[in-house]
Amino acid sequence: MKVVKVGLLGLGTVGGGTVNVLTKNSQHIARRSGCLIKVISASARDLSRKRICATDGIQLTDRPEDIIKDPEIQIIVELMGGEEPAKSLILEALSLGKHVVTANKALIANHGNELFEAASKNKVTLAYEAAIAGGIPIVKAMREGLSANSIDWLAGIINGTGNYILTEMSDKGSVFDDVLKEAQALGYAEADPEYDVEGIDAAHKLCILASLAFGMPLNFKRVYTEGISKITPLDVTYAEELGYRIKHLGVAKKTSQGVEMRVHPTLIPEKRLIANVDGVMNAVVVKGNAVGPTLYYGAGAGAEATASAVIADIVDICRQPDLSSGTAVPALGFSPDALEELPILSIEEVETAFYLRLSVEDKPGVMAAITKILADNGISIEAVQQKEPEQHGANAQVILLTDQVIEKSLITALAEIESLDSIIEPAVRIRVESLE
Amino acid sequence: MKVVKVGLLGLGTVGGGTVNVLTKNSQHIARRSGCLIKVISASARDLSRKRICATDGIQLTDRPEDIIKDPEIQIIVELMGGEEPAKSLILEALSLGKHVVTANKALIANHGNELFEAASKNKVTLAYEAAIAGGIPIVKAMREGLSANSIDWLAGIINGTGNYILTEMSDKGSVFDDVLKEAQALGYAEADPEYDVEGIDAAHKLCILASLAFGMPLNFKRVYTEGISKITPLDVTYAEELGYRIKHLGVAKKTSQGVEMRVHPTLIPEKRLIANVDGVMNAVVVKGNAVGPTLYYGAGAGAEATASAVIADIVDICRQPDLSSGTAVPALGFSPDALEELPILSIEEVETAFYLRLSVEDKPGVMAAITKILADNGISIEAVQQKEPEQHGANAQVILLTDQVIEKSLITALAEIESLDSIIEPAVRIRVESLE
Repeated sequence: MKVVKVGLLGLGTVGGGTVNVLTKNSQHIARRSGCLIKVISASARDLSRKRICATDGIQLTDRPEDIIKDPEIQIIVELMGGEEPAKSLILEALSLGKHVVTANKALIANHGNELFEAASKNKVTLAYEAAIAGGIPIVKAMREGLSANSIDWLAGIINGTGNYILTEMSDKGSVFDDVLKEAQALGYAEADPEYDVEGIDAAHKLCILASLAFGMPLNFKRVYTEGISKITPLDVTYAEELGYRIKHLGVAKKTSQGVEMRVHPTLIPEKRLIANVDGVMNAVVVKGNAVGPTLYYGAGAGAEATASAVIADIVDICRQPDLSSGTAVPALGFSPDALEELPILSIEEVETAFYLRLSVEDKPGVMAAITKILADNGISIEAVQQKEPEQHGANAQVILLTDQVIEKSLITALAEIESLDSIIEPAVRIRVESLE
Repeated sequence: MKVVKVGLLGLGTVGGGTVNVLTKNSQHIARRSGCLIKVISASARDLSRKRICATDGIQLTDRPEDIIKDPEIQIIVELMGGEEPAKSLILEALSLGKHVVTANKALIANHGNELFEAASKNKVTLAYEAAIAGGIPIVKAMREGLSANSIDWLAGIINGTGNYILTEMSDKGSVFDDVLKEAQALGYAEADPEYDVEGIDAAHKLCILASLAFGMPLNFKRVYTEGISKITPLDVTYAEELGYRIKHLGVAKKTSQGVEMRVHPTLIPEKRLIANVDGVMNAVVVKGNAVGPTLYYGAGAGAEATASAVIADIVDICRQPDLSSGTAVPALGFSPDALEELPILSIEEVETAFYLRLSVEDKPGVMAAITKILADNGISIEAVQQKEPEQHGANAQVILLTDQVIEKSLITALAEIESLDSIIEPAVRIRVESLE
């Protein structure tokens, strides 16, 4: 049986998981790939650290550049994360004619265009299934499974930490800060949670998904990003009363105006399957113009779930009859010369529906004043509720669901509303997506 | 740009949909595949029939064998359905070195072993993504996306007609026969509904999924199949009271005893995502030993949704640098010489939990007698409810949820229970799957 030699950069959670899965499923993977996949060397920053995997038969080093240069190694698996030295190491591996598999979403989102070009020039594969939604084969679905479709839009729960926090807030009525602390204690959230809860991690993934969907170069800087740290139990409850759940969604959409790329808290009708994706799980809905809506669900993180995607990429490479050339599928699912720069809309140009919550003085005429301003700005109201104050003299809450509106118009209207004397606090606004 | 010439056998719903999607998305598909895919000829039984697609530029014939023999044609797309002449035509196309794409689940389930061998011998591709779950790229997910995993089990809603009927029964409390008539009027069910509601269609698909999961030759005759025509609104209601929904599931599972392949009505906890897949939609849950549970959801039928899968297969073939050889992935995702015959369990050997409903005389001691017989047969009870008769003298209903039990033992116990004087009718029994 053909032996394929792999070098691993990074031996942390995903690296260790990859070694473990390759070991426990070795026979099975050989039956599928027709190859014996052997990790012959691995690098780690601190060689003395305890590993989650056995490392017998693997040469360990703290010099990843030695692995890149090893002429025996045909596939480099980069799981160190971060932009440098990962980027330089990958570029060198590609230039030496090695295939590269990575789980590094920040790297692909920020430097994918350059890296894919280098892979293409060297006729090797740069694969990155594990960079998005962990073990869910979403890159493969979009690049291959849905290749007949023009993609209208996609929407994903693509950060498990954020989804865990929102699920707990919904299930237990807890406040954000408390759930975050619990999540940190459980290991679901990092000590510095910004990357997850402010949506940066999701934005990296969304940027890649948008390019896969619409055939355009990666453009991470144009993703609008809004976190979940300001979501309150009050809004979770009111949303549910209206038949919605709040999820931290990455949305990419192609309209006649241009492409939308945005990550933000979103009200989704509770009837949608994705509204019921809870805890640390991930899911992506992709709407093709032939297939209609499809959904892909699974673990978005974790050692072995992510390893599942890493190894699937390795198997794809191994299955090629000639390992000296790349796989048949272009990196973003479109021939490189068929990628098109598309206009990307700023968030002010985006049209969505909105959930609005206004803290108002409990006195006559307030509702009339609010609704008049909305009407004057051409904004239709789908639903409205006034929640009376719990004690006399406290604020009432006005909850509104608007129809589709260009964000710019809503901002104008809200500025007028907030200037009313009877409005106590800045409005809370959360975008609403019907996902139909 | 490279031109790939396609011949279409069958120009009905899926054939027409394929032409329509290739036309409306031609530019998009060319950007993805690097090829111009042209349907140059198509066959239909009745050439005078009205088509759902334009046929300009397509040579029409009622002689499919002429298409097979056309040396210009590189890919044959078989969408006529049925076993013959589809099988002979495909075998001839393969022997002439043509790639074949089919949506024909009955053919693959019954003759796939022979057909795949012929494709392999001729070094061409026989692709069948459209045969299972319409537009959902489930074959690709299992063959490639999850290749790192040993699959523990899979469970799917893989017949839209059946799921539509069960959803309507649940939503409206209707009886099976009435919903079936409505479904027929709406075009969701055939005039002869047996194929769908008795589970034969689902069994074809399940058989293929099981081989993809476990790397074994197709063995359609060993799939246990039970339809949904005996499900009553009463059982739908009682199941929901217990926190379950009834779905027509195809289940394939690998245990230390052997492989289970079975299609039957199933209680699923309402919290599971797949329990909330409603109407004509399909979904498959696949549990891998590395990735954990994953789910794939979408339209399981329809002209353009199925065409989406057909064209994805064509694009896979077109993307190969050399169209004279097949794609890199083996037909069942395992190297042909690595397929293994595995022991397949009969339904009596299968272990599941059960929902039982017993119509009993409303008198003291009945419950004690029932539970004693279950205990004597080693069957534990998870939950029990007695529903008092609505009028005096009528039957009471005893609802039981058992723990896991070998079906043989349950049958023995039920025979004893049914021989009790106080049991009025044969027991209703529906299998329960926790899908964890």
